[in-house]
Amino acid sequence: MARRGLAELTMLACVVVGVVSGCAHVPGLSRDPLPSWNDSATRQAIIGFVESVTDPSSTGFVPPDQRIAVFDNDGTLWSERPLYFQLLFAIDRVKALAPEHPEWREQQPFKAVLDGDMDALAATGEHGVLELVMATHAGMTTAEFEATTEEWLRTAQHPRFQRPYTDLVFQPMLEVLAYLRANAFKTYIVSGGGIEFMRPWADRVYGIPPEQVVGSSIKVEFEMRDGEPVLVRLPELDFIDDKEGKPIGIHKFIGRRPIVAFGNSDGDLQMLQWTTEGTDSPGGRLGVIVHHTDAEREWAYDRDSHVGRLDKALDEAADRGWVVVDMAADWRVIYPFRLTE
Amino acid sequence: MARRGLAELTMLACVVVGVVSGCAHVPGLSRDPLPSWNDSATRQAIIGFVESVTDPSSTGFVPPDQRIAVFDNDGTLWSERPLYFQLLFAIDRVKALAPEHPEWREQQPFKAVLDGDMDALAATGEHGVLELVMATHAGMTTAEFEATTEEWLRTAQHPRFQRPYTDLVFQPMLEVLAYLRANAFKTYIVSGGGIEFMRPWADRVYGIPPEQVVGSSIKVEFEMRDGEPVLVRLPELDFIDDKEGKPIGIHKFIGRRPIVAFGNSDGDLQMLQWTTEGTDSPGGRLGVIVHHTDAEREWAYDRDSHVGRLDKALDEAADRGWVVVDMAADWRVIYPFRLTE
Repeated sequence: MARRGLAELTMLACVVVGVVSGCAHVPGLSRDPLPSWNDSATRQAIIGFVESVTDPSSTGFVPPDQRIAVFDNDGTLWSERPLYFQLLFAIDRVKALAPEHPEWREQQPFKAVLDGDMDALAATGEHGVLELVMATHAGMTTAEFEATTEEWLRTAQHPRFQRPYTDLVFQPMLEVLAYLRANAFKTYIVSGGGIEFMRPWADRVYGIPPEQVVGSSIKVEFEMRDGEPVLVRLPELDFIDDKEGKPIGIHKFIGRRPIVAFGNSDGDLQMLQWTTEGTDSPGGRLGVIVHHTDAEREWAYDRDSHVGRLDKALDEAADRGWVVVDMAADWRVIYPFRLTE
Repeated sequence: MARRGLAELTMLACVVVGVVSGCAHVPGLSRDPLPSWNDSATRQAIIGFVESVTDPSSTGFVPPDQRIAVFDNDGTLWSERPLYFQLLFAIDRVKALAPEHPEWREQQPFKAVLDGDMDALAATGEHGVLELVMATHAGMTTAEFEATTEEWLRTAQHPRFQRPYTDLVFQPMLEVLAYLRANAFKTYIVSGGGIEFMRPWADRVYGIPPEQVVGSSIKVEFEMRDGEPVLVRLPELDFIDDKEGKPIGIHKFIGRRPIVAFGNSDGDLQMLQWTTEGTDSPGGRLGVIVHHTDAEREWAYDRDSHVGRLDKALDEAADRGWVVVDMAADWRVIYPFRLTE
């Protein structure tokens, strides 16, 4: 086949199929892949990295099958204020289930939830949160839990924006996900949140299918009910996908080292280290921290925050060459719904 | 675009890219997808199923993103005699490490291995096997274990065939894997074997990348060693991906129900049930059992076997509509190396 013919065929395949390694370099297909990012050094670092790992003549080149990108969810792909949205889900579930549990009126942490007393809830600490999660996330089949999650996302509204929680995803990050996938990356969520809380909607909202969602989990049990197999959720922790757990979760679920990691808090520190500091494969690596600096359009917080504390990871960023996104300066728009307002 | 033009374009995309939903139906691309299968009812059942789930006009149609196929490994994709190959690996490792462990000369199950006394080894039972695995699979980084596995597969020889163990994969199953992938299926291993024992070679041998290998695991720990992050394997069980564990592993790693399951033993019973008995999504399901009936070319065993016992699953096959492969009758050839002999 003539050289020109092959080039045309490749371009045609790119157009027809959409995701083929090297499509970024096909002439005629270039358009701004990150329109919601201001033209800053941050944006240039991301684009420069992608151009380098996809260019076979670059020393940073990484073969397509090794282009794994991992993303924290809470605070990285969507907001996490006033509390992690999954905790707000648990709180709503406690209220919905309260009529069946009269004992909760006098029993912490449930009493605090029913009284709307967030200080009392905070005082129950991690143990209290875990009790909330177990009481609302276990004791049903996996299919029942999935239906409950989807119903909540369809009906619940974020207190500040009065919109469904899935509206509070970050437009610039949706663009990064699409841009990486268009360059043959496999995009994964690696979140401290519950794996089964995210899987029902991650494909619709982020374009990330269930099998590319890694998260925390509780145990399940296999049972035959009237001849039909079901999995029943048990009130027992299985895996905490946070801090040191993130590289462990990546290793367990993906089985190879990512070359891109996006996070926003110290819970992502080890995932960033694991991704960018490995010496076992050639080519470029990219670590990015989303720094919440925009109190007006989203929220501003870092070292002193209880939710999404960013301290050590921010200290290490310069030494390790991680890119720090300044939301206020780098993002032209935060939420997709703002695009049409 | 004219109708004829679109058809040509689709065919072109199929040729260029290889894996596009519906390629099976493009005229001009038809060739025998399962050449090592005799033209039996078994072969027809597999092909009939694939044609049905990929045909948008069929009631059995399943959208491409839901075409998940799971395969047991030992006894389904490769042989498992005289023992699971991973156990033979552990035995070889005990011999290699023995000089550093003089105490093993007097200590079971190691003494049995060093004496070559398989009856004494069998007498140590599951506990003995677990001790062997922990002594040989833990205490090193994940990168070190991977290198050890690859070295063993490069050098060790199967006692009966005097060939590398990875030569003992089943040619007809390689064809099934490729056939399903050509029809937009995602193919997964779901094995009782160690996930990290399989991942280093599953892509090269089966075309299954690391992130599509589900298996049993031991725990790992994250550590910084001289500024470099490593994962260290601990002598502690994490997850047993066998029997009831298989649907649990599928749910955990894949997060959606497969529509195809291939197994060969009672260890695959629940995986077959979970795959074929679900009522939560439309379209066809396929359960297949590889029945080892060929003592001459491979091995013959079922209900009374210690390795790969096939009893309950064989009893349930007829009622549940599972296809049973008769290796002696259905497979024209067993191993790829026989094709060139």
